[in-house]
Amino acid sequence: MTAPSDLLIRNVRPLGAQAVDILLRGGRISALGARLPATAGCAVEEGEGALLLPGLVESHTHLDKTLWGMDWYRNEVGPLLTDKIDNERAFRAASGHDAGAQSKALAMAFLALGTTRIRTHVDVDTQAGLRHLEGVLRTREALRGLMDIQIVAFPQSGLLGRPGTDALLDQALAAGADVLGGLDPCAIDHDPVRSLDVLFSIAQRHGKPVDIHLHEPGAMGAFSLGLILDRTEALGLQGQVVISHGFCLGDVGLAERDALLARMARLGVALVTSAPPARMVPPLAACRAAGVVLAGGNDGIRDTWSPYGKPDMLERAMLIGLRYNLRRDDELALALDCVTEAGARACGFAGYGLAPGCRADLVLVDAQTVAHAVVERPVRRLVVSGGRVVARQGSLLKGLVEA
Amino acid sequence: MTAPSDLLIRNVRPLGAQAVDILLRGGRISALGARLPATAGCAVEEGEGALLLPGLVESHTHLDKTLWGMDWYRNEVGPLLTDKIDNERAFRAASGHDAGAQSKALAMAFLALGTTRIRTHVDVDTQAGLRHLEGVLRTREALRGLMDIQIVAFPQSGLLGRPGTDALLDQALAAGADVLGGLDPCAIDHDPVRSLDVLFSIAQRHGKPVDIHLHEPGAMGAFSLGLILDRTEALGLQGQVVISHGFCLGDVGLAERDALLARMARLGVALVTSAPPARMVPPLAACRAAGVVLAGGNDGIRDTWSPYGKPDMLERAMLIGLRYNLRRDDELALALDCVTEAGARACGFAGYGLAPGCRADLVLVDAQTVAHAVVERPVRRLVVSGGRVVARQGSLLKGLVEA
Repeated sequence: MTAPSDLLIRNVRPLGAQAVDILLRGGRISALGARLPATAGCAVEEGEGALLLPGLVESHTHLDKTLWGMDWYRNEVGPLLTDKIDNERAFRAASGHDAGAQSKALAMAFLALGTTRIRTHVDVDTQAGLRHLEGVLRTREALRGLMDIQIVAFPQSGLLGRPGTDALLDQALAAGADVLGGLDPCAIDHDPVRSLDVLFSIAQRHGKPVDIHLHEPGAMGAFSLGLILDRTEALGLQGQVVISHGFCLGDVGLAERDALLARMARLGVALVTSAPPARMVPPLAACRAAGVVLAGGNDGIRDTWSPYGKPDMLERAMLIGLRYNLRRDDELALALDCVTEAGARACGFAGYGLAPGCRADLVLVDAQTVAHAVVERPVRRLVVSGGRVVARQGSLLKGLVEA
Repeated sequence: MTAPSDLLIRNVRPLGAQAVDILLRGGRISALGARLPATAGCAVEEGEGALLLPGLVESHTHLDKTLWGMDWYRNEVGPLLTDKIDNERAFRAASGHDAGAQSKALAMAFLALGTTRIRTHVDVDTQAGLRHLEGVLRTREALRGLMDIQIVAFPQSGLLGRPGTDALLDQALAAGADVLGGLDPCAIDHDPVRSLDVLFSIAQRHGKPVDIHLHEPGAMGAFSLGLILDRTEALGLQGQVVISHGFCLGDVGLAERDALLARMARLGVALVTSAPPARMVPPLAACRAAGVVLAGGNDGIRDTWSPYGKPDMLERAMLIGLRYNLRRDDELALALDCVTEAGARACGFAGYGLAPGCRADLVLVDAQTVAHAVVERPVRRLVVSGGRVVARQGSLLKGLVEA
């Protein structure tokens, strides 16, 4: 992809502040200020006072699972976590699900709605092997320069129950996965110590960070979380571990919860939540007070697990706001933070933000304030990625990505 | 408003069933069937296989409070229920809030998105007197024939705390309010027996139904609910009482909960929920098992209480689905039921549905199934009210309502 020409966007309000012009050069933000002059050969966009947001961040999704754009999937799945896992494996075996095409379709839909960085968990299991990973690696390659896609090698069917999964995870990291995923060491693997020891040894061997799905509630989840923090500390993995979901932090006693949060803050362990209305969730205010980063993600979108979801991080911010009952404008800014700054910090996306030097990933919407943008989820007037206009009025420009 | 001409809509799928044609005559559904002939002078619309829903029902909102379409309201309100009540009263006194214009703007936005029946709670208090009611009565008149708007005279500042409120409620019912509203007899009025006795005596005097906001949690809410059921039974008001919110039914012991639900079913007392993600909610499955009607409403939309909400009952159905973790297609049909049939039953809207003889209120969307429509919330392709096309592609037809 050729380097973008300079781009001057006039009259935009960064996060609702005073209107400025913003100059993009070499794919980065070069300057913000009142009435910046256009450089020679510079393209110019009129912002007309639109609200300026940094490119949105999806910290937890499953691009490989989605049925986005396909015929409606009739969900008749049972209520247990294992029902959903088994149903999905059976569906894929029968349907020949194409994780490459599906992940690409959903990633492009994310980009059209202003998301420029994604952490996606990709299933690795002994039935499909690395097929889903290979598909998402192709998507990452096809969208390189347009989106930053982090791939988590995720043992959706458990790490211990199906022998050979550890070797597959090993291969997945060698093949290009960025992060090692994990899943409920008690509830799914039934042997938390061995499960976590195997997991962390793979991560150590590759020098890769870890992101663990922890659905386990209450005391069981808090126990598993403690084991994870023990290993994070013992192996010196400060800042390298993320807990996804972490429902237990919403229903464990306050004293134990606050001790866990203090330890997480010390070890730089971040949380990612989809803020599900029907589950307990990590406490936003307590996390912030303790210094634990809490980011937001959609989790799966339109797949065999759940029919819900849109690749729209402003809608996810709204759902986070509703779940945490954020009503004041200063509270709604925290909902946006979950899908912008906090997401970039949790996942380690570099060069993030609206300051000079940051990668020029920008979203313009017609909204009066940040809070207004979150509750209204307006059409994305303009999306810029790496200094290049990629979408207008919610639609990707044609010819951006090879078919 | 003149009677609409006959209208034949071809090739639509009622709630996802086999495609049929549907003939509307004299404002009612006249027939459904394969290849119906157009009558003389009959207008024809091509449905092109769209999903057909009955006009959507909003069972609990506050049209008079909304700031819809106005400049962004910066929310800096405190956390208590009384903070919100006092803040709103002060805001209105200072701003000269026009409940007539605001309620009309929001009602028309509801209609454009397919809602044809609304129950709205309208504030009656000793500061504003009947001003909000008069505004919403004008809106009801302006939209007569297009929407069925039920008005609840609602003592938002409490019934006992501000003397003279009972007389104002009396006047409100005499002036045309359809339903008598109430509010937390313990938590707000601090004298549940006297509060409910005054309330029910006003309702009896006018022969009007009752709809009580019950935010009180746990044991306190269950106690108040018991007092309400006592009066419902003693006064023979079977089928005339609605409980809005009813959070207590989500956090009272199961035995007490089930006894209350059994009694509510016997007395025909319905529930309306907005399914708030941050509060306990009445249990959907247990309500259905007990035979208690549970309907859905947005509650306030974009007002001084809360910045959230859109006048879109499909979005509310989605939020209900998320709150109750409804994932299977048969479960998502229950979410739609809350904003269609159950809403009409809870509020007593007559002639509701898709059967011959029902009022011809219809919505067409491009969706494969009911579940798809709920999670996707597609553009409303066509909205028909009383046999007349009123909106296309999400926009009201011009000239429909006088300015």
